[in-house]
Amino acid sequence: MTRRVGIVGYRGYGGAEVVAILRGHRHVDTLLMEHRSDGAQESGLLHPKGPRQVPATGEAVRAEEIDIVFLATPSEVSMEVAPLMLDAGARVIDLSGAFRLRTPENYVRWYREAHTQPELLKEAVYGLPEFCRERIPGARLVANPGCYPTAANLAIRPLVDAGAIDRSAGIVCDAKSGVSGAGRKPSLKTSFCEVTDNFSAYSILNHRHVPEVLLVSGLEEREFSFTAQLLPLDRGILETIYFRAAEGASAEDLLAIFAKRYHGERFIRLYKPGHAPDLRAVARTNFCDIGVTLDRATGRAVVISAIDNLTKGAAGQAVQNMNLMLGFAESEGLL
Amino acid sequence: MTRRVGIVGYRGYGGAEVVAILRGHRHVDTLLMEHRSDGAQESGLLHPKGPRQVPATGEAVRAEEIDIVFLATPSEVSMEVAPLMLDAGARVIDLSGAFRLRTPENYVRWYREAHTQPELLKEAVYGLPEFCRERIPGARLVANPGCYPTAANLAIRPLVDAGAIDRSAGIVCDAKSGVSGAGRKPSLKTSFCEVTDNFSAYSILNHRHVPEVLLVSGLEEREFSFTAQLLPLDRGILETIYFRAAEGASAEDLLAIFAKRYHGERFIRLYKPGHAPDLRAVARTNFCDIGVTLDRATGRAVVISAIDNLTKGAAGQAVQNMNLMLGFAESEGLL
Amino acid sequence: MTRRVGIVGYRGYGGAEVVAILRGHRHVDTLLMEHRSDGAQESGLLHPKGPRQVPATGEAVRAEEIDIVFLATPSEVSMEVAPLMLDAGARVIDLSGAFRLRTPENYVRWYREAHTQPELLKEAVYGLPEFCRERIPGARLVANPGCYPTAANLAIRPLVDAGAIDRSAGIVCDAKSGVSGAGRKPSLKTSFCEVTDNFSAYSILNHRHVPEVLLVSGLEEREFSFTAQLLPLDRGILETIYFRAAEGASAEDLLAIFAKRYHGERFIRLYKPGHAPDLRAVARTNFCDIGVTLDRATGRAVVISAIDNLTKGAAGQAVQNMNLMLGFAESEGLL
Amino acid sequence: MTRRVGIVGYRGYGGAEVVAILRGHRHVDTLLMEHRSDGAQESGLLHPKGPRQVPATGEAVRAEEIDIVFLATPSEVSMEVAPLMLDAGARVIDLSGAFRLRTPENYVRWYREAHTQPELLKEAVYGLPEFCRERIPGARLVANPGCYPTAANLAIRPLVDAGAIDRSAGIVCDAKSGVSGAGRKPSLKTSFCEVTDNFSAYSILNHRHVPEVLLVSGLEEREFSFTAQLLPLDRGILETIYFRAAEGASAEDLLAIFAKRYHGERFIRLYKPGHAPDLRAVARTNFCDIGVTLDRATGRAVVISAIDNLTKGAAGQAVQNMNLMLGFAESEGLL
Repeated sequence: MTRRVGIVGYRGYGGAEVVAILRGHRHVDTLLMEHRSDGAQESGLLHPKGPRQVPATGEAVRAEEIDIVFLATPSEVSMEVAPLMLDAGARVIDLSGAFRLRTPENYVRWYREAHTQPELLKEAVYGLPEFCRERIPGARLVANPGCYPTAANLAIRPLVDAGAIDRSAGIVCDAKSGVSGAGRKPSLKTSFCEVTDNFSAYSILNHRHVPEVLLVSGLEEREFSFTAQLLPLDRGILETIYFRAAEGASAEDLLAIFAKRYHGERFIRLYKPGHAPDLRAVARTNFCDIGVTLDRATGRAVVISAIDNLTKGAAGQAVQNMNLMLGFAESEGLL
Repeated sequence: MTRRVGIVGYRGYGGAEVVAILRGHRHVDTLLMEHRSDGAQESGLLHPKGPRQVPATGEAVRAEEIDIVFLATPSEVSMEVAPLMLDAGARVIDLSGAFRLRTPENYVRWYREAHTQPELLKEAVYGLPEFCRERIPGARLVANPGCYPTAANLAIRPLVDAGAIDRSAGIVCDAKSGVSGAGRKPSLKTSFCEVTDNFSAYSILNHRHVPEVLLVSGLEEREFSFTAQLLPLDRGILETIYFRAAEGASAEDLLAIFAKRYHGERFIRLYKPGHAPDLRAVARTNFCDIGVTLDRATGRAVVISAIDNLTKGAAGQAVQNMNLMLGFAESEGLL
Repeated sequence: MTRRVGIVGYRGYGGAEVVAILRGHRHVDTLLMEHRSDGAQESGLLHPKGPRQVPATGEAVRAEEIDIVFLATPSEVSMEVAPLMLDAGARVIDLSGAFRLRTPENYVRWYREAHTQPELLKEAVYGLPEFCRERIPGARLVANPGCYPTAANLAIRPLVDAGAIDRSAGIVCDAKSGVSGAGRKPSLKTSFCEVTDNFSAYSILNHRHVPEVLLVSGLEEREFSFTAQLLPLDRGILETIYFRAAEGASAEDLLAIFAKRYHGERFIRLYKPGHAPDLRAVARTNFCDIGVTLDRATGRAVVISAIDNLTKGAAGQAVQNMNLMLGFAESEGLL
Repeated sequence: MTRRVGIVGYRGYGGAEVVAILRGHRHVDTLLMEHRSDGAQESGLLHPKGPRQVPATGEAVRAEEIDIVFLATPSEVSMEVAPLMLDAGARVIDLSGAFRLRTPENYVRWYREAHTQPELLKEAVYGLPEFCRERIPGARLVANPGCYPTAANLAIRPLVDAGAIDRSAGIVCDAKSGVSGAGRKPSLKTSFCEVTDNFSAYSILNHRHVPEVLLVSGLEEREFSFTAQLLPLDRGILETIYFRAAEGASAEDLLAIFAKRYHGERFIRLYKPGHAPDLRAVARTNFCDIGVTLDRATGRAVVISAIDNLTKGAAGQAVQNMNLMLGFAESEGLL
């Protein structure tokens, strides 16, 4: 049976990716939902065919009988639109940071703005299927995880849970992202001539995605050092994670922890010792690829985690969540 | 007074950069030295003007009265050619790894080949002017530092010397380099379609540049985790260095250590707290730019160090060494 | 009913793209066929799943009952392997230039080597579905068109057929291609540091794809000026085609010629006057996008034609041909 | 004797390049001139040293005794600021299109705005030294040529003057430019994710640089087809120029025309038949490189012309003009 889904913010990179993925999904019809007029670019194609458009209001949602609405909007817009959609009877998958943290206080600290929907914040389910799968099918509001935390948590939490990390020495996560992660709004920082042939760090030790890692992995802030960096490429995130392994552990031991934890997981791929994923391995896929290197004599360990920031880091994971919410095969529409 | 210098390996990226820099040097004439015939590409220019060519033999060196020869050759070629040049009376600046370590045993461990010139290995002076300036003017053979270790040592050693790092937690150096660092010889790993839109790690915890960092910084191997990574760009190295600062230190304290240590250093630039260098800031310059971020509550610290791998990381530093050896102003010919 | 197809040369960019496309095809099983051992790279993935491998010999083909074999090999290998496959009862789609021209003499002129299979050259059907669709279903051997000629012929032939071009002034086709068009074999010309930040012309007025354009479009060599150029990007071809329109023609007239000729064609998209395709519009699709600009006062006209060189320019069109040969929907497996 | 020059618009790519070039000029001091406050970005460097700043007013110019002011500003700003500077006694080199055409009517046609300084338009000298050198030293106001016309005119005019082109068939100039040519102001069109992996045409047959080519080359508009295109790289222009050569001409004949015309020209480099320049050959230099290909049997000819759009196409040529105006060696400060 075909279900109807809507997407607000379909002109941004994340929203456009949701639309592109849903084009290959066999069980949903997609509606583009217009939140205020934002200067649609007319296509130059003579006979463009595409999804129909409706306004992003409760009335439109009711009239169209939309099951799920994706919000690919800034967090302040998501806080405004999510209640409208929920009140009209649709369920919501929000791709912004609006509903990812657990308390308004924590939100204020990292996002530097008040949270206007504390009740929804409490209700929202964090949409990382590999760790929260049981709660997603019944959720009204899913907070789709941030791109950096997705790659980080999938690589760190199994090791923390298994006690495989000597936490006294701290964990370093050196993260690199393609430019699409910064959104589509033009700015000098994402202008071609500033980014090409360049590489730069930002939000050093202070990125707003950090609290998501702490919440999911169970690490303390003082244990976790995170730096975000901008790669001169379109899409992809690679995180190089350093820690000291618990005494006596081998690379095989660490891999076995991952293999056990992710047994049956469709979107996690592990690499043999001595191999590590690169961005091309995951581009335009919903995979998170993980590789482990360890110097047994000293316990120094490196885990490399790679995803496509627009797929597993945003739109792909959002569709994965939608599949869980609507009872479809979890990988329907995803490579 | 004009001095005559030769360059072997001028077709590689490092050697070509030496030639390009010397074109703007007011006090030297450059000779291209041919080590065996390696298929010179004929230029398409109708009236190309360029340096004269001579063979890379002792006879040629004596006949031309060459003061200094740059070797921009693989380490095994450098071990073969360096003694020829020295015997003929020239001094040598070697850009390979052949003479950077201190013992043949250490060389074998990291380079996986025997060292054929142990006496020269002992004699060679490590050419990092900011730390070895006094020994360079009198040296016969200067081992020009590796690109990664240059950026790492300039950022780490002042802090180690000042006791500003809590070494018990280890130091992480996450290094990213442009593709020119891999040399000009065609290979699948450096093919355009494999590198563009990609980012990948290599030699994880095991890069042959690690021992240079240990030798200069004084760190132990177990304290130092290093990963090299390939950026989809031509030139530049950025290293993100993580450590726990000694208790009570502020970002200003760390900057003050650098400012004091590098007072008067022409090629070191420091950034205000909250700012960090990017690759464009140092491209085609001989600068090493350094920025510090510190979370005082927890002691987590990040130092970012950026150089151009072909300039301060290779050819520029080689010319800086040449200037010291020939008594010119240290920055002659360098931006 | 599922059919079995094989692919020789699956490690090159074109062959790998065939494999990737067939992964999404509902009616074929794919076998990787090994033509001599060429040092397969072992995957680092712990549980890689992929197509099975068989040797590229007649015995293997018979044993496996393969319906169609794709040859993504150099032309000299295609001339060697194609007869083996045909003799064993498989049909062949050759992605090289081996069977695209009509006479051995013409082949020698442009490919600078003798043609060893003149009978097959005579038998081969040129696989440009939009112009040769009726002959493809029954063909034993399909010569998949070159990437440049595909974009050129789709843009030029309808206008030539309609007499819309003043041929006395000549037609210029200025073509730009991504680097994957040069194949995967490492060479200095396709090394990252030589290609990035660069743009260069090659085979000026003398590219071996020219005769394919002449054969399909009906133009004479003296009327057609073609230059190939290398873009610093992975995939995509854009051709800017200049001519003088027949007197009195408007942009709308030219578009109407295309619209009529391509009515019902699934993979041709036309743009409104004032709009032109770019490479992102066709990336990873099997579309050929075409836009027209005309200055009516002077008759100066520009047609822009864009394809993905690995899809409509190679693997996608090969699968399109396979679909026609096996009686599947022409767009099965293609976006 | 040192002269003082000012630069308005030093934060744009063209203006910043003027500042960078003048840093290596031995005979000028540079002042940064502020035209209204436009949110100067504070540098993160601890001890940045750089040129002093003054306001871009007549009073400031008089007080500082500035000899020449570079205007690297939009054309409407140049029309406003140029008279102020001239009235205060400075000479002006304008890098915008404001003073390049000869009549206000032509300016209105191509720039779609009124010309507010028709007297200055009449007075301005077109600053293409290779063709207008004698008038530049005495000029008060030099209109620095556009980037596309510089590459085009240097390649076309000698051939037109020599009658080497069969003009009846028309001349095609297919031009490709790096993104810096579009300026530094953020826009979606120059955003990294829109430009990388892309190639697109704009202003097809209608670019505002066309009239400069017609004025200098002597071609008629109906004879000249020009398309501008955006390369996914920072800097560089390559133009592929197609025409039919006058009967009987050889590639050597065309080269001889260039060689004679450009004898003694420091910044023009010619290529042997069979060779053509690429963008790397001219990057960060003031050269215009030119190569010729000709099919003698049919007269089809291709000339390839390459410059760096920010150097010979803007700032470098502006400094070349400054050198002529101030009586310095024409190449002072230029590579």
